[in-house]
Amino acid sequence: MSEIENLAALLAQLPGIGKKSALRISYSLINKSEEYNSLLGKSISSIKEKVHKCPVCGSFTETDPCAVCSDPSRDRAVLCVVEQPQDVITIQSSGVYSGLFHVLGGAINPLAGVGPEDLGFDKLLKRIKEGSFTEIIIATNPTEEGDTTALYIRHLLRDYPEITLTRLASGLPIGGDLEYADIRTLTRSLRGRIKF
Amino acid sequence: MSEIENLAALLAQLPGIGKKSALRISYSLINKSEEYNSLLGKSISSIKEKVHKCPVCGSFTETDPCAVCSDPSRDRAVLCVVEQPQDVITIQSSGVYSGLFHVLGGAINPLAGVGPEDLGFDKLLKRIKEGSFTEIIIATNPTEEGDTTALYIRHLLRDYPEITLTRLASGLPIGGDLEYADIRTLTRSLRGRIKF
Repeated sequence: MSEIENLAALLAQLPGIGKKSALRISYSLINKSEEYNSLLGKSISSIKEKVHKCPVCGSFTETDPCAVCSDPSRDRAVLCVVEQPQDVITIQSSGVYSGLFHVLGGAINPLAGVGPEDLGFDKLLKRIKEGSFTEIIIATNPTEEGDTTALYIRHLLRDYPEITLTRLASGLPIGGDLEYADIRTLTRSLRGRIKF
Repeated sequence: MSEIENLAALLAQLPGIGKKSALRISYSLINKSEEYNSLLGKSISSIKEKVHKCPVCGSFTETDPCAVCSDPSRDRAVLCVVEQPQDVITIQSSGVYSGLFHVLGGAINPLAGVGPEDLGFDKLLKRIKEGSFTEIIIATNPTEEGDTTALYIRHLLRDYPEITLTRLASGLPIGGDLEYADIRTLTRSLRGRIKF
């Protein structure tokens, strides 16, 4: 196997990169600067050393605990539960949330063999027991699996009536077109309609 | 900038990778094995050292000259002129061509500031003068720029009436659907119709 084919085969193992685009990227790397290739190569080789999961919340971090968990200005009464570490970054980038996070690492998905025992709910319960949360925002994805996980968390927290459980609003995306909305989104959007 | 954002910014400079997929790939690399990341990192860092353009034909190679140019079993009477090094690999993978190649490195595109002087036609002419070609296949892309380049080559070779000039057939792609063919492809396909 030639070096280009070898590189393309490695690249094709990344998400969203097929065989054709892996080859295209390999060719483009031959035309990039030595400096860029060296920077990218080093960054990929060392990413696992530098970035790991925060032992407290489970999001990606370079410090222990992560920047959010160790930030004294964050609201320690609100906990936002998400599926993946990248969801933390997405919500952080909105700039409207100032509480803490908890990353489950996935959602309950019996078909894929992911049960509640795989998502470390004991760790979540321990955090809630030891913390002083007044609100838990369940920000799992608006999917079958995310909804199941949300229901499971509601069930888990049935002994904490003093904690307000909330869920991210589902509905039409801003800038979207009613005509192109799928039926499930439209249904949620109608059921969750608010007074205007 | 965090290490993930740094990696994502580097990845977003590759063709076909936007900001979102660059982040997605960065996250996925955290979950890949150390071994994979190290292999991919090294391969990217060293690709420019290992692969360069063949001094004879201009295609990507790890040897000097490339495997095609140095293969004594190739037909040295036929030369296939392509735009990019990757076109050589595409044609090679079809397995139906046994002649030599010449890579122009692009196509004439006045709007992008690419004129004939940028494509090393003197090198092509020198090869033709010194070689013993009986056929030159112009395999530039079936685009405005590729067609212009093909016409330019025909003009360049007007003093070689003994060399047969050919061009790759254009028409409906195999497995394609007439209904979805664009008008230009259909026009070419009709004009170039063959006896059945």
